[in-house]
Amino acid sequence: MIVHFAGLGSMGLGMARSLLRAGFDVHGRDPDPARVAAFEAAGGRVLGAASPPAQVLVCVVLNAAQTRAALFGADGAAGALVAGGTIVGCATVSPAFATEMETEARARGLHYLDAPISGGAARAAEGRLSIMAAGTPEAFDGATPVLAAMAETVHRLGGCAGAGSAMKAVNQLLAGVHIMAMGEAMAFAASQGLDLARVLEVIRVSAGTSWMFENRAPQVIAGDYAPRSAVDIWPKDLGIVAGIAADAGLALPLVATALAEYRAASAAGMGRRDDAVVACHVAARAGIALPGDV
Amino acid sequence: MIVHFAGLGSMGLGMARSLLRAGFDVHGRDPDPARVAAFEAAGGRVLGAASPPAQVLVCVVLNAAQTRAALFGADGAAGALVAGGTIVGCATVSPAFATEMETEARARGLHYLDAPISGGAARAAEGRLSIMAAGTPEAFDGATPVLAAMAETVHRLGGCAGAGSAMKAVNQLLAGVHIMAMGEAMAFAASQGLDLARVLEVIRVSAGTSWMFENRAPQVIAGDYAPRSAVDIWPKDLGIVAGIAADAGLALPLVATALAEYRAASAAGMGRRDDAVVACHVAARAGIALPGDV
Repeated sequence: MIVHFAGLGSMGLGMARSLLRAGFDVHGRDPDPARVAAFEAAGGRVLGAASPPAQVLVCVVLNAAQTRAALFGADGAAGALVAGGTIVGCATVSPAFATEMETEARARGLHYLDAPISGGAARAAEGRLSIMAAGTPEAFDGATPVLAAMAETVHRLGGCAGAGSAMKAVNQLLAGVHIMAMGEAMAFAASQGLDLARVLEVIRVSAGTSWMFENRAPQVIAGDYAPRSAVDIWPKDLGIVAGIAADAGLALPLVATALAEYRAASAAGMGRRDDAVVACHVAARAGIALPGDV
Repeated sequence: MIVHFAGLGSMGLGMARSLLRAGFDVHGRDPDPARVAAFEAAGGRVLGAASPPAQVLVCVVLNAAQTRAALFGADGAAGALVAGGTIVGCATVSPAFATEMETEARARGLHYLDAPISGGAARAAEGRLSIMAAGTPEAFDGATPVLAAMAETVHRLGGCAGAGSAMKAVNQLLAGVHIMAMGEAMAFAASQGLDLARVLEVIRVSAGTSWMFENRAPQVIAGDYAPRSAVDIWPKDLGIVAGIAADAGLALPLVATALAEYRAASAAGMGRRDDAVVACHVAARAGIALPGDV
């Protein structure tokens, strides 16, 4: 089966490689030549005017604007799908935007699966992502072989686009707040002279634990902020959450506070570092040293 | 061994019963006659002027002021300990206050174990609490048989009072923020028309999960806010965290935001309900219905 792939970033490249391993004929593109070269080295082919039409187009770009351009822009990839082909939209976007893309696809005789992804780059490369998916039965049918190669878990959340992006937003709301709470907790623990490794040992078996605490606190203890997932993800993703909430007339004070803190950390020059560095952002305001501080 | 027990509330009564089951001769007191009657029904004896002196005094009251009064006030129980006896202080207090109690105890020839508890009323009744403990070796030695009967896990955190209360504050910081994040997430999910039971299913296997999310979201789904742990715990406990942080010159924006939200929920009449009801507090501002709303 021929699959087109738009976006070969840290998530997309791993997903495209998973498709190649599963035997798909994958044609991909990315603005960064180094990403395209890595994709070609894994057996992928460059998506261009000469590429054969595809049954499925997977779109793994940064946001709504990039999704719209990649699918339906001047050089949009939707035009290279066969009639009745399926678009799998993986960017974190609002439910309203996902619905809009579904409508655009339908107008062109295509199906659209609202399919945000979760799990991080390592699981993307292993074909073990979690996908929060919503769409028509036809969209699911069209995407199924591709999803099977990329995901360990596909949550089927609804019969039209929207619920996938809504569920992803719920997850990002919690994840973004929890990472910042981890940062406040570690800075607070350091201010009280607690041994941070002991804090992780005790909290991970206590009611205060979270997936993000257990995942990110070890990086604070090691003082290692090489980026797995960058601070700058969060002004984007919590911005989407805040925008959806505002449209619903819903005040979310923790989201607003965490969003302001991520923006402040980014403005302080931490945007490209791993998001666990928010512990340093919190601690620095009080002159408290954490591991790795000089 | 004779043990004195101050405070027979939802945690204290279960702990005192665990001591009775383990064969200790427990003499207890509480301002509420119903709590004392329940304690006596389990084989406990009323702590009074005629009670024999004890080797250990366990103090499970609400806060620092009650701890000081219960131990060293006009009718304080510290005076009824044998020379070299041990006080086990279980209330959530600041590390500085725990150190002050240790100093007061030492001046009377007594040992003090800084021993905040975690795990909830059900585990207290089962003798399966988690205790975050710090104190001198003598304080640990004196408390050990009592701790063994009340706790499944005793975290030994330091050689003098303070680190136990500091670790408990770290846990409460995270737990309090996570419950409020659960409330924002469930209100947000409802605003997007998501099925809340499905939200729990998906989030519990995703990066957005937390111990508190998994524990409290089912109550929101059931619309059941009968109190296991009341909203009014949090203005107290996050107030302690905020106070400790302020003394350290440390700004914790998420803690400040969550604290303001718990105070608002309490002011809106929700103080005695289960803390999962904060989801309703968030949703109500946008006129969004959750299960149980009429």
